[in-house]
Amino acid sequence: MNEGALDKTVDVAVVGAGMAGIKAALELEARGFSGCLLEARDRVGGRLKPGHVAGHKIDKGGQWVGPQQKLLLAEAAAYGVEKYNQHTAGRSVMHFNGVSKISTGEMPRLPLVSLLELQRVVSRLDALAFTLPPDTPWTARNAETLDSQTFESWIRANVWTHAAREFLRVATRSVFCCEPKHVSLLFVLDYVRGGEGLDVLLGVSGGAQEAKFRGGAHQITEKMALRLAAPIVYDAPVRSILQHDDGVAVTTDRGVVRAARVVVATPPALASRIDYANALPARRDHLMQRMPMGTVIKVHIAYETPFWRDQGLSGMAVSDTLACNVLFDQSPEDLSCGILVGFFDADAAAEFSSQGDNARRSAVIEAATAFFGAQAGAPIDYVDNDWLAEEWSRGCYVAHMAPGVLTTFGSALREACGRIHWAGTETATQWQGYMEGALQSAIRVAEEIAAHHDVRMAGE
Amino acid sequence: MNEGALDKTVDVAVVGAGMAGIKAALELEARGFSGCLLEARDRVGGRLKPGHVAGHKIDKGGQWVGPQQKLLLAEAAAYGVEKYNQHTAGRSVMHFNGVSKISTGEMPRLPLVSLLELQRVVSRLDALAFTLPPDTPWTARNAETLDSQTFESWIRANVWTHAAREFLRVATRSVFCCEPKHVSLLFVLDYVRGGEGLDVLLGVSGGAQEAKFRGGAHQITEKMALRLAAPIVYDAPVRSILQHDDGVAVTTDRGVVRAARVVVATPPALASRIDYANALPARRDHLMQRMPMGTVIKVHIAYETPFWRDQGLSGMAVSDTLACNVLFDQSPEDLSCGILVGFFDADAAAEFSSQGDNARRSAVIEAATAFFGAQAGAPIDYVDNDWLAEEWSRGCYVAHMAPGVLTTFGSALREACGRIHWAGTETATQWQGYMEGALQSAIRVAEEIAAHHDVRMAGE
Repeated sequence: MNEGALDKTVDVAVVGAGMAGIKAALELEARGFSGCLLEARDRVGGRLKPGHVAGHKIDKGGQWVGPQQKLLLAEAAAYGVEKYNQHTAGRSVMHFNGVSKISTGEMPRLPLVSLLELQRVVSRLDALAFTLPPDTPWTARNAETLDSQTFESWIRANVWTHAAREFLRVATRSVFCCEPKHVSLLFVLDYVRGGEGLDVLLGVSGGAQEAKFRGGAHQITEKMALRLAAPIVYDAPVRSILQHDDGVAVTTDRGVVRAARVVVATPPALASRIDYANALPARRDHLMQRMPMGTVIKVHIAYETPFWRDQGLSGMAVSDTLACNVLFDQSPEDLSCGILVGFFDADAAAEFSSQGDNARRSAVIEAATAFFGAQAGAPIDYVDNDWLAEEWSRGCYVAHMAPGVLTTFGSALREACGRIHWAGTETATQWQGYMEGALQSAIRVAEEIAAHHDVRMAGE
Repeated sequence: MNEGALDKTVDVAVVGAGMAGIKAALELEARGFSGCLLEARDRVGGRLKPGHVAGHKIDKGGQWVGPQQKLLLAEAAAYGVEKYNQHTAGRSVMHFNGVSKISTGEMPRLPLVSLLELQRVVSRLDALAFTLPPDTPWTARNAETLDSQTFESWIRANVWTHAAREFLRVATRSVFCCEPKHVSLLFVLDYVRGGEGLDVLLGVSGGAQEAKFRGGAHQITEKMALRLAAPIVYDAPVRSILQHDDGVAVTTDRGVVRAARVVVATPPALASRIDYANALPARRDHLMQRMPMGTVIKVHIAYETPFWRDQGLSGMAVSDTLACNVLFDQSPEDLSCGILVGFFDADAAAEFSSQGDNARRSAVIEAATAFFGAQAGAPIDYVDNDWLAEEWSRGCYVAHMAPGVLTTFGSALREACGRIHWAGTETATQWQGYMEGALQSAIRVAEEIAAHHDVRMAGE
């Protein structure tokens, strides 16, 4: 696939061969446009990344799919990638305030008063979320008020029990890879709306963590890429995009591609590092200055057996204080070993990013031991992926917005800048931050481009 | 000065020939190190920029100096640049809620109850600010609480009269070029501490707007640059900085400079666009993802005479609703014409950046007319500077921080990354955001570098 096909001319150049970029290129080809994908890495997939632990294939990046994610389910099915359910049988462990408690279902075992409050608060957040106009949350009647405060401010003002507060903080870390202090309430609500409610976002059965892809989510992008007529040029970070009257010149480390239009399908923090020779509207530039990536380190730890299952535990565990604050069972379907997948999220990720993988391994063992007992002290393999240190992602899972960003700059999020179009999961109006959002953004951007009458390049 | 002296080797390369970069180079030369300044623009000065209106020299960028700013006063004196006081004689105009009111002093003419509340609130903010440890505000006892909320949240929770709230919002726009919803309370307090109190930051006589430089602040950087032995290479935006065991290679559009160490003296949002080949600690990269520039358009409008003075007005005016929300008298000392200087700040700047200078001219005339009457409708000249659209500033006056940034990433602000050192007013611990802060940061970074024993390049 890597034809090194630069100094060429196509209808539409696409920057970034993540799921959004590949899908956009496929959709444009389906409409008869020629293309070329420019990828900084030596692989496709972006925030989807293959790996191995204890000899088993894993996803070092995005992996789960929920039943609401119709585009992703259709895409996987079209390429023959099967899914299977996240293991949930057994009881989960909640480690709050330094004490482990076992619960029977997915809901945390909180004190009753906290649990009741949490249910009320989640209902209230959902109700607020579902009032937002999907494409333009900044036009909501109360947008200024919602966007003037952090989610942490809202928690402190509206949630009274310690456990319910802590649960919302853990939930924020898990979903956004940042602390509630880092994000606007309006941004959180818009994300909850896009994800069809907080229970869906956080849920396993019936929710966004319901199933995984056999062989890994990453292979969907590999299979999609094989269907492309357009070449993918690897190791070709885009350094500048210059617009002319009749097209764009996209300069990479491997040469120049000329096109009628270009799709930038990278996270905003990476898009901001491309040199547009000052030709972007200031609002777009300022938006990209204000969409930092979340911070997360994804870890896998393998054991001889999934010993937690023998204790009646599901392998699902969550903590408000341990650095590795969430674990799930990631054992292979044949149970030839036991694997746990987990995360350092938000501030814990920022802290452990600088400490090296030995320190992280110790912290994961500490968490697994706190959750599942002393047997967790003897792993047979460990691997992690520090997404903060990935040069061509600069964080994961997704960009977030601090207060005031949506209301002041949000309208620039999807607005094409002349011949430059924006895709990527951050630009989705449903399931932003997920593979589903990446696919939606790709379809939208292809339609957006097809509506123009100047997408053919002369001299083809 | 533009010797185009690339493919050369020096002890320390400096990126950015603003006041911080030039001062750093001078300080390093004073310590015996050879240097080279790399500047993206075709001029020195960065956020200080010369201009003309009605034939008179003006500052299109930073201009004022206060009596507390000892480094700047000394620098100006050393280069023979004289200062003169901002014109204040006469009464100022306060246009709140669509109604203009004349006041006798610098304090706004608010309803008495609002004025009393404002005095109480400003005292409280100052008291909070002065408890912060100057170098490490993120270690303050209550740092998490202060950094978990926006300044807007604090205003809504602690200020009760409409006029006092509006005054604080206008003050935020004027000082930070952003809305109170965009900034962390901890960041605001640390800035207030650095600026020696809110009254000093906002004040004219005795405050940060007390005086101006005859011939413009920009010429200080021009005169400083003339003292440099090091060449300044213009039109040389830095694209990458690679670190080796014994030095750095700084690649610009005009070639490569090799050095033992490098000072990056640009705003963080520009520093983030340099390619470090993934060699920065993730915390530093993530900090730079989270320090957007403020949004401001500085305007000058000239009249045949300073007619407002005939009405007993000082030319100082402020509004909570007009797009051009602050005006000052900027008339030449010989009063050969009348000039007003003003600003579109914060959201108004973001809005008017896209509307072109005709729309801005109209909005400035609208404001001046609301403040000073119909005579303001007949200007003889108008010039503005949209700092959002300046490719090599990307906003002004200064970067700001949303909630959570100081507490999570603040410790990376001044921390050298191997052979890469950080300067610029954003890294100052006093008067960050001002020329004074730029100078402080330059002296600090020169001392920091001189403390190393590997600053000499072999083969010189």
